[in-house]
Amino acid sequence: MLNGSPHVVIVGGGFGGLEAAKALRGEAVRVTLVDQRNHHLFQPLLYQVATAGLAATDIASPIRNILAHQENCTVLLARVTGVDTARNVLRLDDGEGQELAYDALILAVGVTHAYFGHDAWAEQAPGLKSLEDALDIRRRVLLAYERAERTEDLEERRALLTFVVIGGGPTGVELAGALSEIATRTMMRNFRHFDPSEAKVHLLEGGPRLLPGFPESLSAQAKEDLEGLGVLVSLDTPAKDIDANGVLVADQRIEARTVLWAAGVGGPPLVRTLGVPLARGNRLPVEGTLQVVGLKNVFAVGDIASFEQDGALLPGVAQVAMQGGKLAAKNALRLLDPSGPELKRFRYRDLGSMATIGRSRAVAVLGRMNLTGVLAWFAWLFVHLMALVGFRNRLTVLLEWSWAYLTYERGARVILEPARAISKD
Amino acid sequence: MLNGSPHVVIVGGGFGGLEAAKALRGEAVRVTLVDQRNHHLFQPLLYQVATAGLAATDIASPIRNILAHQENCTVLLARVTGVDTARNVLRLDDGEGQELAYDALILAVGVTHAYFGHDAWAEQAPGLKSLEDALDIRRRVLLAYERAERTEDLEERRALLTFVVIGGGPTGVELAGALSEIATRTMMRNFRHFDPSEAKVHLLEGGPRLLPGFPESLSAQAKEDLEGLGVLVSLDTPAKDIDANGVLVADQRIEARTVLWAAGVGGPPLVRTLGVPLARGNRLPVEGTLQVVGLKNVFAVGDIASFEQDGALLPGVAQVAMQGGKLAAKNALRLLDPSGPELKRFRYRDLGSMATIGRSRAVAVLGRMNLTGVLAWFAWLFVHLMALVGFRNRLTVLLEWSWAYLTYERGARVILEPARAISKD
Repeated sequence: MLNGSPHVVIVGGGFGGLEAAKALRGEAVRVTLVDQRNHHLFQPLLYQVATAGLAATDIASPIRNILAHQENCTVLLARVTGVDTARNVLRLDDGEGQELAYDALILAVGVTHAYFGHDAWAEQAPGLKSLEDALDIRRRVLLAYERAERTEDLEERRALLTFVVIGGGPTGVELAGALSEIATRTMMRNFRHFDPSEAKVHLLEGGPRLLPGFPESLSAQAKEDLEGLGVLVSLDTPAKDIDANGVLVADQRIEARTVLWAAGVGGPPLVRTLGVPLARGNRLPVEGTLQVVGLKNVFAVGDIASFEQDGALLPGVAQVAMQGGKLAAKNALRLLDPSGPELKRFRYRDLGSMATIGRSRAVAVLGRMNLTGVLAWFAWLFVHLMALVGFRNRLTVLLEWSWAYLTYERGARVILEPARAISKD
Repeated sequence: MLNGSPHVVIVGGGFGGLEAAKALRGEAVRVTLVDQRNHHLFQPLLYQVATAGLAATDIASPIRNILAHQENCTVLLARVTGVDTARNVLRLDDGEGQELAYDALILAVGVTHAYFGHDAWAEQAPGLKSLEDALDIRRRVLLAYERAERTEDLEERRALLTFVVIGGGPTGVELAGALSEIATRTMMRNFRHFDPSEAKVHLLEGGPRLLPGFPESLSAQAKEDLEGLGVLVSLDTPAKDIDANGVLVADQRIEARTVLWAAGVGGPPLVRTLGVPLARGNRLPVEGTLQVVGLKNVFAVGDIASFEQDGALLPGVAQVAMQGGKLAAKNALRLLDPSGPELKRFRYRDLGSMATIGRSRAVAVLGRMNLTGVLAWFAWLFVHLMALVGFRNRLTVLLEWSWAYLTYERGARVILEPARAISKD
């Protein structure tokens, strides 16, 4: 019916891509949303899957189901391998070189881990961006305890029970807090050859404070809270080297079998194929209208877009992506309408940000309010629960949390593979 | 404290192994339970994970947490590669050839898929025994729909939307019913290029009726119910060949990209290392006391034990394993006590069996009662919910089911890997 209508292609079904698709509902365009995964992922809770608090499916929802009732939108499971901006087509991963033509393109592909030129670290210190990442981290953490039970070498056991998180942003803070709770609470009485509470959790931050995007007082509070949980926080301590046996920092080596990366992200290889100069961290430089600099009909939103507002780059959070996705979609409509109005400029409206630090503690900035402690934690709980896609997920997660809160158990303590891996690597 | 006590080793943390461990609680023996996975799996609901109804972690519980409060029991995550019955030691998978000595051994290792000599079929037609199997099947089923949306070749699409289940036992019946519901309900409105309800589900059974362990009237009812759901049931129809493009049966070829195996199981390679003659299907022949024939201090329970009662082999169900595990543990104590009483003989007490056929329908034998329809379905629901390990799992599963019942949605429609696989294999 809409075969003659212009075609808007959205790459990525995260917060930005989904909002863009929804903003085009009922408009006289054909919409295709392409993602290499079949699910939208609620990334703010991904650290809970990594630390066995939630099941993978609790925070994921099939993209085509979310958009089932949007008649003008087709969802395609495919990997985009390149963008030919001269011919206005995407190359897909199909062996026969399938292409997808667009009139306007919205790139909402997000970022991936970046190791500041140390690609070899990726193997030793996995990052946390996808469900597969989370399940890999969960497996590493749980296997470390299993191996500690099996070894009789005390030094080896100490290294197995040492966990290092690199990077003191929200993800690093949340991971470190959860790892500490696992050691001191969840694993209690589960082992016969050691006391799990002897486990050590290090959080290394290269800069002078945790949560650099937050007010300084909250950074200090987060550090205090983490230390209260037993986390060893080191500031001004960048990792100098990472190998299979531990981490080298300024003046010492930390022997640790499990190292997690929460320190840096950058654009995926796809963005190089656009043929435009990239901004810092392989991001796409955008105009005020979210058009990629130099490409009239290509927009970029979310983490992948390098957008400056009031002298600072916008942070890589869900709200930036959602607000950007909506504006880019509307701007695409304006662009495709020959008699359309001028494109609008993007302005991010900051609704606040928050990070949780283990059970019952969090820090939050809501408007002009800085919250800490239990109050911030309840705010965090409420906001994340309400934002979760799908009523079912919300109920399930609430149930899991209530259960975990009452019992300290973690319901998803499951290693999804047979124990080949228990033997030394 | 118990270092001088005899050592009972249990291999396998399924229904049989767990019951054996629990039966040894407080006894003057050291107990070690070895499993190659860290979780006990509630196998009767595994088909629901495969068909995206439940999350993997809903039906799995960490073995060491289940046994956390049993002081005389150590849990070891390890793969047992062999049993040296002359020296009374197990060989573990450790690179250094770690061994574990036992005074009495209880084998509760279960069975794995068997392809009647056609090992090549394993690749084309995966079976359903572990969480990894279930996630693999889920991925195949969901990807088939995704590929159908992407192809423009009508014959290819038809083959992608044809699902064949081989084997008409409880697992095959349950899988076929769920696959049919996915096609006719769950996927509704999710695709733009085809109508999911055009998908075809075949159930092939080599023998003359479905559910051969059940009374004949229930077999007939199950067939009728499945056909009511749109499943194409073929009896007396063994698979003659399976390849990447479909299944060959008596007089026809079914072009199908997804074929699932629920037809045969057999003992794992481990049982060959015992050096005793095996029973049919690589199972271990056992005495009335559940001692493996020819091995005084080795017991076998559950699916892996070939035990005849009243002229028939006991079926591979949870109740047989649980009752066997308990008796084998008690018999091990009797054996280890020099002044102990004689070993007791095993007698299985049949509490009933049931199979579910999609939404609101099931067949059940409870004592002398044969139930069908909604009543059997509620019985199935109640029994399985109550039997699920852990209060948390029970609540979560109840919630998922209620939600699915009201909405026909399947909460776990998540493919756990990027879309590399979407391209033709």
